[in-house]
Amino acid sequence: MLKFSRTQRISAITKILMENPNRVIGLNYFTELLNAAKSTTSEDIVIVRDMLHFLDAGTIETVAGAAGGVKYIVNAPENLRKNFPTELCEILSDKDRIITGNFLYMTDILANPDILQKAALLLASTFKEEELDYVITVETKGIPLAYEVAKLLGIQLVIVRRDSKVTEGTTISINYLSGSSKRIQSMSLSKKSLKKGSKCIFIDDFMKAGGTALGITELLREFECQLKGIGVLIDNNEVPKKLVDGYVSIVKYNGIDEQGNAVLKVSDNWCK
Amino acid sequence: MLKFSRTQRISAITKILMENPNRVIGLNYFTELLNAAKSTTSEDIVIVRDMLHFLDAGTIETVAGAAGGVKYIVNAPENLRKNFPTELCEILSDKDRIITGNFLYMTDILANPDILQKAALLLASTFKEEELDYVITVETKGIPLAYEVAKLLGIQLVIVRRDSKVTEGTTISINYLSGSSKRIQSMSLSKKSLKKGSKCIFIDDFMKAGGTALGITELLREFECQLKGIGVLIDNNEVPKKLVDGYVSIVKYNGIDEQGNAVLKVSDNWCK
Repeated sequence: MLKFSRTQRISAITKILMENPNRVIGLNYFTELLNAAKSTTSEDIVIVRDMLHFLDAGTIETVAGAAGGVKYIVNAPENLRKNFPTELCEILSDKDRIITGNFLYMTDILANPDILQKAALLLASTFKEEELDYVITVETKGIPLAYEVAKLLGIQLVIVRRDSKVTEGTTISINYLSGSSKRIQSMSLSKKSLKKGSKCIFIDDFMKAGGTALGITELLREFECQLKGIGVLIDNNEVPKKLVDGYVSIVKYNGIDEQGNAVLKVSDNWCK
Repeated sequence: MLKFSRTQRISAITKILMENPNRVIGLNYFTELLNAAKSTTSEDIVIVRDMLHFLDAGTIETVAGAAGGVKYIVNAPENLRKNFPTELCEILSDKDRIITGNFLYMTDILANPDILQKAALLLASTFKEEELDYVITVETKGIPLAYEVAKLLGIQLVIVRRDSKVTEGTTISINYLSGSSKRIQSMSLSKKSLKKGSKCIFIDDFMKAGGTALGITELLREFECQLKGIGVLIDNNEVPKKLVDGYVSIVKYNGIDEQGNAVLKVSDNWCK
C-alpha cells in the first residue's frame, strides 16, 4: 500500500476540508485514504489549522463522540473584509452600468463566481456562529449568491418561487405587499422544502424597502420556522426606512447623482 | 518577516488553488504571501500536483509568459464517476418523491450543495478541454448547478430569463416551441450579457424533448456566439427523440412504473 509524505497528506487534507465547509469528516476517512496512523493525521490537521489561522481564513474544530471528527469553519479574512466592499463599489460605479430608466446593471456581477465567492464568504462569516438549517432566497437573481452562502455554511438552499409549479407538489403561497411599489406580490414554497422548527437565514441580492424580506418572515411563520438573519449584497439607501431590521449588507446604493454617476458606499458592517 | 515550513506553505497553496479553478495565479502571489523563493514555491507546487494526481482530482498547469503562473484544472475522480450517478439514481428512486400528477420531486436535490458539487464536477470535467467563455442556463431550477459548473471552469455564468426585466437594459428575446408540450415559450437575455464570438456551454437540470436547448442554440445565434456543448443532470427518457444531439446527462429518467416506482438508470456517459 502507498505511503505518503507529510507534505502530500497535508495537501490532500487541506483540499478535502476546504471542499466541505461545516461538515464533520471522521478522522478514519483521512487515515484510510492516506494510509496513516490516527496520531499522525491529527498532527497533520494541526498544521492545516495553523495555516488557516495565519491566513485568517477560518479554523478546524474537533467534534467529539461516535459521529465525531473534524470540521472546517470558514472565515472572511481581515483583508477581504476591508478591500472587497470597496472593490465592489468601484465595479458598480462604472458609468457603463447605468441603463435606461436609471437602473444599475448588475446582472453580470450576480452570476460571477469570483465576485460571489468573496461576497458569500463575508455573509457566511457573519452567520457562522448560528446553528442553521437552511439558507432561503427568492428567485431569480440572488440564487447564485445564496447558493454560495449555503455551501460555505454546509447547509441546504431553499428557493422560493414567484408562483407555484406542478413539480413542487403541495405548496404554501402567501401574498405580500412590495415595500417600494406597494403592489401585491406572491411567493410560493413546496411543503416538502422545510422541516418544522428549522432555523433559516434569508440571502438576497438587493434590498429596497424590505417587502420581500418581510414576506419571507411571514412565509417561514407558516412553516413554523424561524428567521435568524438577513444578508444582502446591496442595500438600496434611497429607501432608508425598511420594513425589517437587523439585516446586513455589503454595500449601500444611493441612486444616481446629477452628474449621472451611481453613488455607492461600503456598509457600516464591513468598516470595522 | 514570518518564515513558513514546507507543510504550511503546501497547505496554503492547496487552499488557494482549489478555490480558484482554471484561473492563472502568478508565482509571485505565492512567493510574497508565503515569503519563499520562487524555486521553493515551484517545488511546493509539484508536491500539490502529485497529490492531485494520486487523488485523480485534476492537475496543475504551468502557464508561461508575462501573465504566466499556475492554474488548477479540475477532474472528476474515477470513483466519483463510478459511484455518484448510481447514488443519484437511488436518491431519486425514493418513493416519497412521487407527487400528485406523477411528477418526481427533485427541488431539494437541485439546491443541495453537497450533491451539486459532485454533479457539477462530472459535468465540468466533460467540458474542461474546451476553451469556453460562459456557462449559460435558463431560470430557475438549474441555476445552482450551472453556477457550480461555471465556478469549476473559472468562467462567468449567464442566466436567461423567461421574460425581460427593466433592470436588464436592452434585451434580445426569442420565441421557441417547447418540444414536449408544443407550446410557444419565450426567453430573453440582456444584450450586455455575452460578447460577440463567445463560446458557451448550456447546463440545465432536466431535459425532456430538448426544446429549451434548441431555443438556447437560436438565442446564441442572435448573439453571434457558439454553443460548444450541453450538459444536464437528468435526461427524461420518456421522450427518447430529442430536438438536439450531442448532449451529456448524468442519469436517465424513465417515468414511473406500474408499481409506482420511479425508474432511473445511469447514463451511458458515466458507465465507461
